[in-house]
Amino acid sequence: MPRKYQNEDSILRKIAGSARSWQGRAGQSVTLGIGDDAALFRAKPGHETILTCDWFLEGTHFLREKHPPDAVGWKCLARAISDVAAMGGVPRCFLLSLALPESHTGRWLDLLLGGLQRASIRFKCVLAGGDTTRRNEILINVTVVGEVRAGSAARRSGARPGDILYVSGRLGEAELGLRLLKRDNKLTASRNPAARKHLYPEPRLALGQWLVKNGLASAMMDLSDGLSSDLPRLCAASKVGALLEKVKIPRLKITNVALSHLHDPLQLALHGGDDYELLFTVPPRKVKRLPKTFQGVSLTAIGKITRGRELLVLEESGNTTPLMPRGWDPFRKS
Amino acid sequence: MPRKYQNEDSILRKIAGSARSWQGRAGQSVTLGIGDDAALFRAKPGHETILTCDWFLEGTHFLREKHPPDAVGWKCLARAISDVAAMGGVPRCFLLSLALPESHTGRWLDLLLGGLQRASIRFKCVLAGGDTTRRNEILINVTVVGEVRAGSAARRSGARPGDILYVSGRLGEAELGLRLLKRDNKLTASRNPAARKHLYPEPRLALGQWLVKNGLASAMMDLSDGLSSDLPRLCAASKVGALLEKVKIPRLKITNVALSHLHDPLQLALHGGDDYELLFTVPPRKVKRLPKTFQGVSLTAIGKITRGRELLVLEESGNTTPLMPRGWDPFRKS
Repeated sequence: MPRKYQNEDSILRKIAGSARSWQGRAGQSVTLGIGDDAALFRAKPGHETILTCDWFLEGTHFLREKHPPDAVGWKCLARAISDVAAMGGVPRCFLLSLALPESHTGRWLDLLLGGLQRASIRFKCVLAGGDTTRRNEILINVTVVGEVRAGSAARRSGARPGDILYVSGRLGEAELGLRLLKRDNKLTASRNPAARKHLYPEPRLALGQWLVKNGLASAMMDLSDGLSSDLPRLCAASKVGALLEKVKIPRLKITNVALSHLHDPLQLALHGGDDYELLFTVPPRKVKRLPKTFQGVSLTAIGKITRGRELLVLEESGNTTPLMPRGWDPFRKS
Repeated sequence: MPRKYQNEDSILRKIAGSARSWQGRAGQSVTLGIGDDAALFRAKPGHETILTCDWFLEGTHFLREKHPPDAVGWKCLARAISDVAAMGGVPRCFLLSLALPESHTGRWLDLLLGGLQRASIRFKCVLAGGDTTRRNEILINVTVVGEVRAGSAARRSGARPGDILYVSGRLGEAELGLRLLKRDNKLTASRNPAARKHLYPEPRLALGQWLVKNGLASAMMDLSDGLSSDLPRLCAASKVGALLEKVKIPRLKITNVALSHLHDPLQLALHGGDDYELLFTVPPRKVKRLPKTFQGVSLTAIGKITRGRELLVLEESGNTTPLMPRGWDPFRKS
């Protein structure tokens, strides 16, 4: 049986011991790691430091009984790293704030650290510090620190009228994965691609970096709450509107008849959260430089940026209707 | 009546609007603030970036009914900044992760932001980003980013046998403040210095920076959980022991007879948390360069670092006894 840990220092030692074994060359920018009052990070000359943090809370962002601890560990880091991808940056290190019931300081914590370790190695983002405390509910907050060449980061605010709106991958799959997981306790990521997309998201780091390096994206953000909630944020930051072509939105093909009655691929694609795909705009003269796929991930034009501030959807009928934000919002009354 | 906010974007706008009005010249290192996927920070050439994060959770670190929202705002930032002080650094910016009940998104949030604003201006540490969500309980996590000249940060690990152990200020006052606040609902920070120390801690930034600039501290940390819990951490990091002289520990004088029966100044000073004073070690040859007070804060030698790994207390009788960690530990069974 794994030992239970009864004080804060021993839990910190467990986390630090686990982290030491997975810090390789990616950790060179971290000049002081876990165990002091704070961590020290040395940025590359000519670079800006990217800073982002994300809640990952039991009951709000994951369910103790439905989400394997390994996936909780992977996802809490991967989703925060997705914000670095959206700036076109390279992740370097992260801080982990963890509040746990004492019952979860043994095997559950080991499994969490296992998932975290795999994500940390995969995305070359090392654990540099954090804070732990005891709590009845499992609370996680992750701060990710990344780097980008000074002045080159993609922002939400750069979209201009006429720019073409693109999205990576296909949308709505993570939301379907969540729905299936809620229904079926035996569903696993290895057997179901939608469950995998929900449990083990892959931030589009290489794509974000490539778009920024080649100066192709005038604006960019990641899709965490759903297209219908996130597109208005990009447009508000850029002080523009958008016309979304419904027919072009990349979505799932649900071949299972029973499933297709329950889940509408278009609604999933418009409003489903947790996809961590990139939403970006490209000036028309640069569109020809964009490939159809990048490292196996499709890049799809789904509309264009408009001067008017409205957000409109071009229906298949040829009519336009207003886009209503129905993605994930913790404060919305449903 | 202040408006209640019903979605995440409007709460973000409220926080961002509040922050814009208090970002002055200190914000120059933040090249992109609130409102994008992440913030951008540009470190000074030749400097390292200090990274630290801290939980501040209702029920664990503060009480909704006892702690004024203004103090919650001040303290959540001040205590995270204290870790920057302990490295001898300068705070630059912070990320605020906030989970709130909808009932607290009106006036309570306004007051919280007021306290946060005062601390932000006082410590020249600007809000650069964060994450908000809805929750039944009030959860706060603060990440503070600071700077220090490369290679000069004070660490916990530099104490050597023979070094003299120092502490700033007097210990135990914040713990007394907490006890008094729990008993007396009408107690305010303006009328009671102990309550003030508990509610509105002052990180020892100037002292930490001065010690580092003058190369006086061989090791340093801040006292957040209490001397008896924090000193073992400094000693463990430095692989040394310590002999603490009980009679020298700076403590309160409790003149009120009723209070003095309830609260022992020495126990408060040994085990009380939340003081945010600095604990540091000074090589013997440098001791004469240390003043008795620094900007009105006393600096007191309370013992010395020893080669053996034990932590001992020299009693007034001349006997030594082992130091037992009885400071604040969320995982300890009490």
